[in-house]
Amino acid sequence: MKNIVLTTMAAGVALAASIPALAEDTNTSAIQNVLSTYETALNTQDTDTIVSLYADDGVFMPQHSQPQVGRDNIRAAYYRVFEAITLDVEFEVDEIRQLSGDWAFVRTRSDGTVKINATGDSGPEGNQELFLFQRTEDGNWKIARYIFSTTNPPRG
Amino acid sequence: MKNIVLTTMAAGVALAASIPALAEDTNTSAIQNVLSTYETALNTQDTDTIVSLYADDGVFMPQHSQPQVGRDNIRAAYYRVFEAITLDVEFEVDEIRQLSGDWAFVRTRSDGTVKINATGDSGPEGNQELFLFQRTEDGNWKIARYIFSTTNPPRG
Repeated sequence: MKNIVLTTMAAGVALAASIPALAEDTNTSAIQNVLSTYETALNTQDTDTIVSLYADDGVFMPQHSQPQVGRDNIRAAYYRVFEAITLDVEFEVDEIRQLSGDWAFVRTRSDGTVKINATGDSGPEGNQELFLFQRTEDGNWKIARYIFSTTNPPRG
Repeated sequence: MKNIVLTTMAAGVALAASIPALAEDTNTSAIQNVLSTYETALNTQDTDTIVSLYADDGVFMPQHSQPQVGRDNIRAAYYRVFEAITLDVEFEVDEIRQLSGDWAFVRTRSDGTVKINATGDSGPEGNQELFLFQRTEDGNWKIARYIFSTTNPPRG
């Protein structure tokens, strides 16, 4: 009986140790999928998909703009971005770190080209990004806060 | 006996509910103090104080620069900032949110003036900021990740 109890306890400890690790891997994969979907949607000007990746009360903080709070404002902000520019960029993930059961942050850099729609001029695009992800009640990871800034030198 | 147990349980529940709330208030105050110290140090070009507010493995993500990882790189980056510009700004906190026992984020906006040291020209400065704070082993809240971007219109 003693042995059975110890074995059961040992199995319980192993299970307790392995489930969080497995859960973190699963969460990391889920977050990477959101990032990959975001990258594609950004390059194809797919505003609907982008908006669906944000939490209801998400905040998008684009350069040269006040923070955009909530999906309606986020949608309008991406429309303005896509009206002005066409992006062809790739994201590189520097860090994905889960902070609690329902929160994680991701730090990335992105590089590629940007076309100014008004003039047709193209140039190099380089940014760094910080995303806060939140797991919503339905279990999906959503973009809760997102800010980026250029890594290109200042325009002379 | 049943009553005593229930009372004890009720007290336990009340305690469990109140301690995190109190702790969260204390943490929010501590984080606000760091922000206030950061604001003053930014306006007085006090690099040593700024560096002391960062976690050892903190990341500073200034505009027009690659991410700066760790205190040595962070120090060098602020030297470059202060060589180029003199700031006089105030931060306004939009959100402080604790995400776990040791992590919190802060979303702010800042406004004021910036002087270009090379020319002496001054102009309006406006930014939005996202800070990730981490509580270190000694119980202090440190800036773990920090990125900002301008809220001013693009230069024509």
